[in-house]
Amino acid sequence: MTAPAPKKVVLAYSGGLDTSIILKWLQTEYGCEVVTFTADLGQGEELEPARKKAELLGIRSENIHIEDLREEFVRDFVFPMFRANALYEGLYLLGTSIARPLIAKRLAEIAAETGADAVAHGATGKGNDQVRFELGVAALNPALKVIAPWRLWDLTSRTKLLEFAEANQIPIAKDKRGEAPFSVDANLLHTSSEGKVLENPAEEPPAYVWQRTVDPEEAPDTPEFVEIGFERGDAVSINGERLSPATILARLNDIGGRHGVGRLDLVENRFVGMKSRGAYETPGGTILLEAHRGIEQITLDAGAGHLKDSIMPRYAELIYNGFWFSPEREMLQALIDKSQEHVTGTVRLKLYKGSVRTVARWSDHSLYSEKHVTFEEDAGAYDQKDAEGFIRLNALRLRLVAVRNARAKG
Amino acid sequence: MTAPAPKKVVLAYSGGLDTSIILKWLQTEYGCEVVTFTADLGQGEELEPARKKAELLGIRSENIHIEDLREEFVRDFVFPMFRANALYEGLYLLGTSIARPLIAKRLAEIAAETGADAVAHGATGKGNDQVRFELGVAALNPALKVIAPWRLWDLTSRTKLLEFAEANQIPIAKDKRGEAPFSVDANLLHTSSEGKVLENPAEEPPAYVWQRTVDPEEAPDTPEFVEIGFERGDAVSINGERLSPATILARLNDIGGRHGVGRLDLVENRFVGMKSRGAYETPGGTILLEAHRGIEQITLDAGAGHLKDSIMPRYAELIYNGFWFSPEREMLQALIDKSQEHVTGTVRLKLYKGSVRTVARWSDHSLYSEKHVTFEEDAGAYDQKDAEGFIRLNALRLRLVAVRNARAKG
Amino acid sequence: MTAPAPKKVVLAYSGGLDTSIILKWLQTEYGCEVVTFTADLGQGEELEPARKKAELLGIRSENIHIEDLREEFVRDFVFPMFRANALYEGLYLLGTSIARPLIAKRLAEIAAETGADAVAHGATGKGNDQVRFELGVAALNPALKVIAPWRLWDLTSRTKLLEFAEANQIPIAKDKRGEAPFSVDANLLHTSSEGKVLENPAEEPPAYVWQRTVDPEEAPDTPEFVEIGFERGDAVSINGERLSPATILARLNDIGGRHGVGRLDLVENRFVGMKSRGAYETPGGTILLEAHRGIEQITLDAGAGHLKDSIMPRYAELIYNGFWFSPEREMLQALIDKSQEHVTGTVRLKLYKGSVRTVARWSDHSLYSEKHVTFEEDAGAYDQKDAEGFIRLNALRLRLVAVRNARAKG
Amino acid sequence: MTAPAPKKVVLAYSGGLDTSIILKWLQTEYGCEVVTFTADLGQGEELEPARKKAELLGIRSENIHIEDLREEFVRDFVFPMFRANALYEGLYLLGTSIARPLIAKRLAEIAAETGADAVAHGATGKGNDQVRFELGVAALNPALKVIAPWRLWDLTSRTKLLEFAEANQIPIAKDKRGEAPFSVDANLLHTSSEGKVLENPAEEPPAYVWQRTVDPEEAPDTPEFVEIGFERGDAVSINGERLSPATILARLNDIGGRHGVGRLDLVENRFVGMKSRGAYETPGGTILLEAHRGIEQITLDAGAGHLKDSIMPRYAELIYNGFWFSPEREMLQALIDKSQEHVTGTVRLKLYKGSVRTVARWSDHSLYSEKHVTFEEDAGAYDQKDAEGFIRLNALRLRLVAVRNARAKG
Repeated sequence: MTAPAPKKVVLAYSGGLDTSIILKWLQTEYGCEVVTFTADLGQGEELEPARKKAELLGIRSENIHIEDLREEFVRDFVFPMFRANALYEGLYLLGTSIARPLIAKRLAEIAAETGADAVAHGATGKGNDQVRFELGVAALNPALKVIAPWRLWDLTSRTKLLEFAEANQIPIAKDKRGEAPFSVDANLLHTSSEGKVLENPAEEPPAYVWQRTVDPEEAPDTPEFVEIGFERGDAVSINGERLSPATILARLNDIGGRHGVGRLDLVENRFVGMKSRGAYETPGGTILLEAHRGIEQITLDAGAGHLKDSIMPRYAELIYNGFWFSPEREMLQALIDKSQEHVTGTVRLKLYKGSVRTVARWSDHSLYSEKHVTFEEDAGAYDQKDAEGFIRLNALRLRLVAVRNARAKG
Repeated sequence: MTAPAPKKVVLAYSGGLDTSIILKWLQTEYGCEVVTFTADLGQGEELEPARKKAELLGIRSENIHIEDLREEFVRDFVFPMFRANALYEGLYLLGTSIARPLIAKRLAEIAAETGADAVAHGATGKGNDQVRFELGVAALNPALKVIAPWRLWDLTSRTKLLEFAEANQIPIAKDKRGEAPFSVDANLLHTSSEGKVLENPAEEPPAYVWQRTVDPEEAPDTPEFVEIGFERGDAVSINGERLSPATILARLNDIGGRHGVGRLDLVENRFVGMKSRGAYETPGGTILLEAHRGIEQITLDAGAGHLKDSIMPRYAELIYNGFWFSPEREMLQALIDKSQEHVTGTVRLKLYKGSVRTVARWSDHSLYSEKHVTFEEDAGAYDQKDAEGFIRLNALRLRLVAVRNARAKG
Repeated sequence: MTAPAPKKVVLAYSGGLDTSIILKWLQTEYGCEVVTFTADLGQGEELEPARKKAELLGIRSENIHIEDLREEFVRDFVFPMFRANALYEGLYLLGTSIARPLIAKRLAEIAAETGADAVAHGATGKGNDQVRFELGVAALNPALKVIAPWRLWDLTSRTKLLEFAEANQIPIAKDKRGEAPFSVDANLLHTSSEGKVLENPAEEPPAYVWQRTVDPEEAPDTPEFVEIGFERGDAVSINGERLSPATILARLNDIGGRHGVGRLDLVENRFVGMKSRGAYETPGGTILLEAHRGIEQITLDAGAGHLKDSIMPRYAELIYNGFWFSPEREMLQALIDKSQEHVTGTVRLKLYKGSVRTVARWSDHSLYSEKHVTFEEDAGAYDQKDAEGFIRLNALRLRLVAVRNARAKG
Repeated sequence: MTAPAPKKVVLAYSGGLDTSIILKWLQTEYGCEVVTFTADLGQGEELEPARKKAELLGIRSENIHIEDLREEFVRDFVFPMFRANALYEGLYLLGTSIARPLIAKRLAEIAAETGADAVAHGATGKGNDQVRFELGVAALNPALKVIAPWRLWDLTSRTKLLEFAEANQIPIAKDKRGEAPFSVDANLLHTSSEGKVLENPAEEPPAYVWQRTVDPEEAPDTPEFVEIGFERGDAVSINGERLSPATILARLNDIGGRHGVGRLDLVENRFVGMKSRGAYETPGGTILLEAHRGIEQITLDAGAGHLKDSIMPRYAELIYNGFWFSPEREMLQALIDKSQEHVTGTVRLKLYKGSVRTVARWSDHSLYSEKHVTFEEDAGAYDQKDAEGFIRLNALRLRLVAVRNARAKG
């Protein structure tokens, strides 16, 4: 590409070493103005140091954007996704995938507000995050350039990076001198770890990889019960206490974390064509999925539920692949949201040493009819003789096939 | 129906009170010859008492069919289903559903062998099993009549049943005098309990419902590791020991059962239109699903895996609804089986107090490429610059949509 | 069923002989009050004779409901369905299926308004219409009884019917003395013929079966062009003239009919388990489908279009099977409607001797970008080098599979 | 890419000007040995001139591969695809898409046979064909390099190309001096035209674009009937004469072509992200699709047919996008092929001025049961009373939903 150099770039800036190097590299490489964007998505780190670091690197204060996006993250991204019971490849709760569109959205918006002509991010050329950032930006602000330094520069080794940092007066925390034994991403929904010590899927992840959940073996010997209230498919209360979306997820993380709930060791298929291995911790999300399935069991009709289940894998794949802001994700969301009108009620769950299970659920919107299902006398609610016709007509085509097949053989 | 009375009926006979009453009722109602069929599907009961009971009720010995179907059950029904990672409504491992087609098959075959013109079963008119039996029979032997006494007779209360039994010299075990607190079905794959004390989904199942798994709280304090070997999608060994299908499932039941693995409290949608609540125990099956997902993670291509996942809900629904012997289930099976050609390798799992998790997997057929995914220098295996074009073309349509939408807004 | 006899029944009444017999039969059999409901759905018959006939049969005038539902039919049923490009079994435009829910809706509503406890219809026990009526009524007014005389009475031959009519002073039109050579259903969307002379699918339907379209061989030798304007997925104008939904469909029927457009000879699968053969004429609908596909071609994104196409067969099946008023149809409709926000523009079609083809389409909402697609110099709109990375990453997993398969063989 | 230059390249060589330029450019650019591969896929051109041209350009005769692949093309690619009734975006018969995998296959095979380390093709960087060639080659011979000169060279205008040709003594046919008014691809299945005069989708294609079919207005005034025999889903005879696959397709092209059957004016979504407009002529394929649908109507069970229809869009998309040699296409093919075991019989079609319609179909494998469907007395084949139970159980969940919704509102 010999596209003209960007003039003003909004950088997704964590305040860490890597994005600090990127910040400086952008200034050096393009001579452009850099706007930093740092968001609290619940990753559990202070944001103010990022402000100081940005200032230190010469960013003017009006160009430093620091935002607490936790409520928006849970309300507009996590919860809509959980309405779908989304699992990528049967197991993964999409904790990283669902955070990227929000960052892309704010990058695009801040670029519009500040008159920037480009955005930049610190994702590498091998992963999914670059795709998620860039598809999001393309969908929201199609004229913006995207700069992905990891695909461009020649700082291809740890040594070169550190040399660049030193040459540019970028402070290097002591613990960043050596290489991290694995790479981490965290937000309010999950912590993921991958790379290095995790690269051999035939070896169990070392214990120190897990950061957000206790080892189930160290979890309390006494189970804990928790009740989650739902309205129209979204969690609204814990043990009867009405809470904001982010607060609910944070509390469930605490509860799940101390019971060792939500660990996952997975080999997954990246959109860019290779398999990778990750260790995921999603304590609150794991509880939420179980609870949401639990409340749907009594409030969702079979036709609705089966349709949802049948489109879920595609919905999850779209989010994983970075197509949150695509027409088809929005279409699927419309379908899913339509199904949730009566997904209202309460689920009681039991947490114990790594597992969470629904043990009870109730709702004013319940479709469960004890009158119909009972083994006892049902007072005419259901006429067992109806089953004969039901079965006979369902069987008719099978009978016709059987007769035909026999005839064709004979 | 005023269809002519059957002359010879093959009865799915457990040897228990209910099917003994049916046996006698068939003789009384139709004056027909009864052939009994009793199968060992791993339900854990002796079969010889069923023979004695049948003889006592006047069945001639050549009309008594007692068969050990455990290997056929696991090899031809359970394993093919597990190749699909089948879960009904996201959670249910289909333990009852998958046993019914085999019983239907043998009913139809024995009817053909013995010249019977009808079969009979003891399933009620409210449940799924009647559908599964009758669709299976229709598909395999479309001319056979099916008699479902629970939909026909007037023995509509426990008292009437016991009176009928006494009037007809049917022995009644002492513990059958009172009513069971819930209804049980068991086979090598699972034990299910439903009805009566379980009919309120807002109440946790009482502890005595669970019969096949220890309470996770009583499970060993030390985790157990187990290695399962797979070939072409089917489990073939445990901890390096090559075993037959039924033996594998039996062993996994033992292992899972003692660690409290595989309990499920579920409200599900029956095919006949109502919701019901069940307590399921599937210790070996729960391990098997986790292990099969584990080995697929490294041996199945993304395209294959995503396609499988997308059709799985439909496949599971077909089995749940009784359509095992349908053209569409066979078509889906062909698709699934095609995908399993390289699903060969070994998975290591950790069992602990109610949970089972994959911790490692390896295979000569692995598609995992450390060379491609590594965070380290990859020696040119992957060119990060390729990602730019990949993303830009994936983004193109999103850009065109964004530009159009902006234009349309005006 | 020994359910109590209905007291007041709303009858879907055409004014013809069969429903007149049903009317009288209901009075005779149950001694109940009968409310008649006769709707103009564009079947092309006068409704006033139905009023007179009902009066003659003793129905009080306040119990006679005659309604022109053509606009509601097209606006709320036909058009939403056409947004989906719905085709049952690849070919059938669902002309009968889509009319039944509206009749069910009005039956249920009139029952509520008049305090009736039952509804009745004249569909037989072999067809789909009974299912469509009864599922609709169940979904809208679950307490209503449904009476389907054809499944109940003993008037099982033409002779018996005529005897009953004569015995009850029901006037019999001369042409109804003999049996019709086939059965017809008509509304604004289509005319369907089936039965009798059409029952052998190996014989071409006789020419007199076709009633609404000229034989293509008799159609004008000169093609006709027509332009249809769309807004948000619905047709709103013909040749620049803005028209109401029903008027649009009526005009397109005229245009299509005179060019022999929209004939279909089909063997289809009924929901009740058998195959049937029908001769369908859907002149306006056939034009509309072609036109809607045409406008979607330039206004619908690939992701949106492919998702729509993938769920269409299920949507069509739901409508065919009578599940219009089901949660899952409404969910799919939400998805479909979401996709139509920009399906606005104009399509030009050419009609000629039985066929209709899109020859041009344009829209302010077009996503077609000549700038991108051109064979000419594109001024940098598209960088052909991007394709290399796009292909290489799409190919990566195929390469890994190929290497693995070779290794596994070797 | 600074990959090492290829040593020996197999070029997909048509003998035309463009691929002759590529041939010379490969020699010039890389100093490599060139192997030419020219296939007869039914495009209707002599192949021997391609041999002479290659020789003229210095290719040794053992490096010139000229093959008649018509039977393989129809038998192994076209027919399997038609078993699925594949239509891309509802309308396109995939005539170009399905030819590319076979060319890729032979390129990969000839490379293996001749020890070449690369293949080259003449597809541009904007289209789908580059993807189809390259994905096919990657799947079949993952180590091969692929050279796509149009993405690499600087011959970006017609003038530069002609200069290069002249400078390199490449003969230029007189009619190639000027630019073609549109671009054409042809094989036994179809002829496609796109580009230039076709680039405005708001303008009807000029008459001279259509090359393979007569204008329907010029087609015979008398309809023609044709009977196609099928076995297991594939056409095997025309009017009773058993013919090879390629002969069948060729004959149907003749028949369809003279009746103006199979023209399509389409705007479609390319895999690379843009929309394009094409004019397609698929006379034989259009007849074949109609006929295959016709024979399936009586031989395919509803469950099988609906499942096929539901996966068809995905299958078609895979072929369009170039994933013929992917695990998921092969899985879908296994499903489709499984369904075709009884798709055997004969269809009678009527062709007239641009349209083709099934008018009759018959089969020893028919599932159509006149006995069941008849309006006449059916002698007990079907008990209309069965419908009541069938409907009541299908309605049960809808009733429960209605009651719940009313309760929730109230």
